[in-house]
Amino acid sequence: MMKSYMQRKMDLINQQLNEIYTENMALNKDLAKAMNYSLMAGGKRLRPILIMAAADALGVDGEKFLRLSTSIEFIHTYSLIHDDLPAMDNDDYRRGKLTNHKVFGEALAILAGDALLTMAFEIIATDKNVDAETKVKIITEMSKAAGAEGMVGGQVIDMQSENKKIDIQTLKQMHAAKTGALFCAAIRSGAILAGADEKQLANLTEYARQFGLAFQITDDILDVVGDEKTIGKPVGSDEKNHKSTYVTLGSLESAKALAQEAVDKAKASLVDFGENAEFLRALVDYLITRNK
Amino acid sequence: MMKSYMQRKMDLINQQLNEIYTENMALNKDLAKAMNYSLMAGGKRLRPILIMAAADALGVDGEKFLRLSTSIEFIHTYSLIHDDLPAMDNDDYRRGKLTNHKVFGEALAILAGDALLTMAFEIIATDKNVDAETKVKIITEMSKAAGAEGMVGGQVIDMQSENKKIDIQTLKQMHAAKTGALFCAAIRSGAILAGADEKQLANLTEYARQFGLAFQITDDILDVVGDEKTIGKPVGSDEKNHKSTYVTLGSLESAKALAQEAVDKAKASLVDFGENAEFLRALVDYLITRNK
Repeated sequence: MMKSYMQRKMDLINQQLNEIYTENMALNKDLAKAMNYSLMAGGKRLRPILIMAAADALGVDGEKFLRLSTSIEFIHTYSLIHDDLPAMDNDDYRRGKLTNHKVFGEALAILAGDALLTMAFEIIATDKNVDAETKVKIITEMSKAAGAEGMVGGQVIDMQSENKKIDIQTLKQMHAAKTGALFCAAIRSGAILAGADEKQLANLTEYARQFGLAFQITDDILDVVGDEKTIGKPVGSDEKNHKSTYVTLGSLESAKALAQEAVDKAKASLVDFGENAEFLRALVDYLITRNK
Repeated sequence: MMKSYMQRKMDLINQQLNEIYTENMALNKDLAKAMNYSLMAGGKRLRPILIMAAADALGVDGEKFLRLSTSIEFIHTYSLIHDDLPAMDNDDYRRGKLTNHKVFGEALAILAGDALLTMAFEIIATDKNVDAETKVKIITEMSKAAGAEGMVGGQVIDMQSENKKIDIQTLKQMHAAKTGALFCAAIRSGAILAGADEKQLANLTEYARQFGLAFQITDDILDVVGDEKTIGKPVGSDEKNHKSTYVTLGSLESAKALAQEAVDKAKASLVDFGENAEFLRALVDYLITRNK
């Protein structure tokens, strides 16, 4: 069930992204190419899937919100392009492919990122299946999660923590902002789209928090035990770059235990949800057994 | 009237920006400082003033929308920070002050820009004085104007035109996207906030188009005849950088004539508006006589 659900959603999302690209062929072909290169570079499409899955968990068909769901992939993609820039992480490869600035140059990479971020809000605002009140709520969720208090703020802390030993609490806060906030926005947006009540929203938010934590810990574990070809980047780069991670601050064993704890808490937060939340439960199990 | 109207609005905007900054002190102090440095670096606050002035022109007090109006200054400021980056225009000074990356480094400058853009949408979405339908319309205007089909797209064309002789039609298109679109979004947002009908919206849009044109031509003229200290950048830099401008593609005289033509057209589009549009009329006159 798990695999086919994900595959079906991934296919739908890729199809939708392609459609948006064709409709919105930008003013400038080179810009459109640069945007599309990173948007279609693969990836698990986890964030849009989470939007749809949260709606599903509340008994509302998440696929009704397919187009709007892709907006968060625009935000995620822009953040990857900017993170990879020479002034930031200076990465040459991402998912086994050359990074955006390596192919299109730094200037176009910066601008492609800017345009992707901007387009995310356009996609939500111009959606035809969702009412204005709901759109405004979702734009609020996404902008808070992506901005200075969320993803961008987390990235600044990450940069400033380089070559510094930080404690596990700071590490947690940094990831909660850098990657966790956008996972939260995804789940909460799906819940809002499905008309969740306060309690449902709180439970799904807790799920998202634990999900984000489990996701990040597994990322750190994969950097040590992963297969270079499968994860698409060199193994052991965190240690080489003196990065504080759940593994380097503890051990492989302690990191695995923390990840399992997060998975258990995530599932516990779904106790009031019935069969409809089966995918969300399966997804956190998959998270800590994934190999990329 | 003109000067005191502008000064009053500028003061209100600066006060409001300061308030937003204090409320939203970001997760990270360095990020907040970098955002604030460029946001408070001065500038004429033309875009938020245009939002309020368009509402005024329709007989609705624009100052009711002060907070929302500042959102467009966040977008404008982010675009200046990113334009100045070494990978783009590589400018050391802006408005007589060191550019953002010169003070805070490239990485933080990129991220401060990202956070400012994101916060623009948060400010609109969380505004307390405007209904959801109107917010969605304004987010649509701003995202289209700022993105791949507007400002970012225009910046790409500008980059690609460097050291190339382009014709005046291409120059016009480039500026219409790079700077014109955001002026249009400002005026149209103000009109939408004031509940403009179709015809009023069309007339104000035409005003904005001519306004943008007159603004750009004057910028090109000031690069030749301006005072270095007053405009805050070296005079003659366009010619030195082999940039196509309304002056280099024609002459100082032809540029002045084009600017006057745009001013006349802008005023003609306001013929159905009464006394309430007096500021908008005075503003285009000021535009071509300004010295910075």
